[in-house]
Amino acid sequence: MTDEQARQRFAAARVARLATADASGRPHLTPMVFAVMSGRNAGVDTVYSAVDTKPKRSTSLRRLANIAANPRVAVLVDHYAPDWHALWWVRADGTGRILDTDLPEARDAIARLVARYPQYREWPPVGPVLAIDVAHWSSWSAAGD
Amino acid sequence: MTDEQARQRFAAARVARLATADASGRPHLTPMVFAVMSGRNAGVDTVYSAVDTKPKRSTSLRRLANIAANPRVAVLVDHYAPDWHALWWVRADGTGRILDTDLPEARDAIARLVARYPQYREWPPVGPVLAIDVAHWSSWSAAGD
Repeated sequence: MTDEQARQRFAAARVARLATADASGRPHLTPMVFAVMSGRNAGVDTVYSAVDTKPKRSTSLRRLANIAANPRVAVLVDHYAPDWHALWWVRADGTGRILDTDLPEARDAIARLVARYPQYREWPPVGPVLAIDVAHWSSWSAAGD
Repeated sequence: MTDEQARQRFAAARVARLATADASGRPHLTPMVFAVMSGRNAGVDTVYSAVDTKPKRSTSLRRLANIAANPRVAVLVDHYAPDWHALWWVRADGTGRILDTDLPEARDAIARLVARYPQYREWPPVGPVLAIDVAHWSSWSAAGD
């Protein structure tokens, strides 16, 4: 698939997985809901997610500590199906930033997230906001399209 | 959920996501099919996956290079649903080993994978085999069960 198709498939997905690593290189992995905004920051695609008010494990915010120590992240959207000819994935490699919710960029991101996920009415995204500036898109599909 | 429930949910899933990091701490992320075997290695749970013959991007084996440089990995199974009360995830944190396919452990893993995924008849798992010894299970569910 082309980079533009990859971006579109990624942006249309409901859930992605975020990989971070701490300063010593130990990886961490968590699912996240997200919204992609293109071009807000000098033509760069940015993937936004927000900490919401669902009950958390104490470890579930390790992603934020990891990004503070090591901003390099990877985000994956993939499609699994019993028919392996239908498999595909799209990955965004980039760098993470943690935004206070009073910043305009964070407010825009939260508005986009709330518009995309009505579920946030029950569990508001209180922040902080994670912004991932995409340095590189990569993708694969079994169909080769 | 209990650790035993977490292991069972993880083991029953069809796809997981693997996070690795290179020696400099740059994370990498890929979907994988897998099989869990418990207790083969001194009571440790081990997650196995194998390189198969589906067409690959040149970058898709970076996981193996990363594990050779930095064996710490995380593997995530998660359930997404429009009803966020149904969300859950299970993560296995551990260390990876790369096995040549002529080792008995690798042959056992491939047999288990082939039994679990009939799709391998079309794309045989040629190896090498990735073995992830689980050091720690963690889990979360919105329902709190």
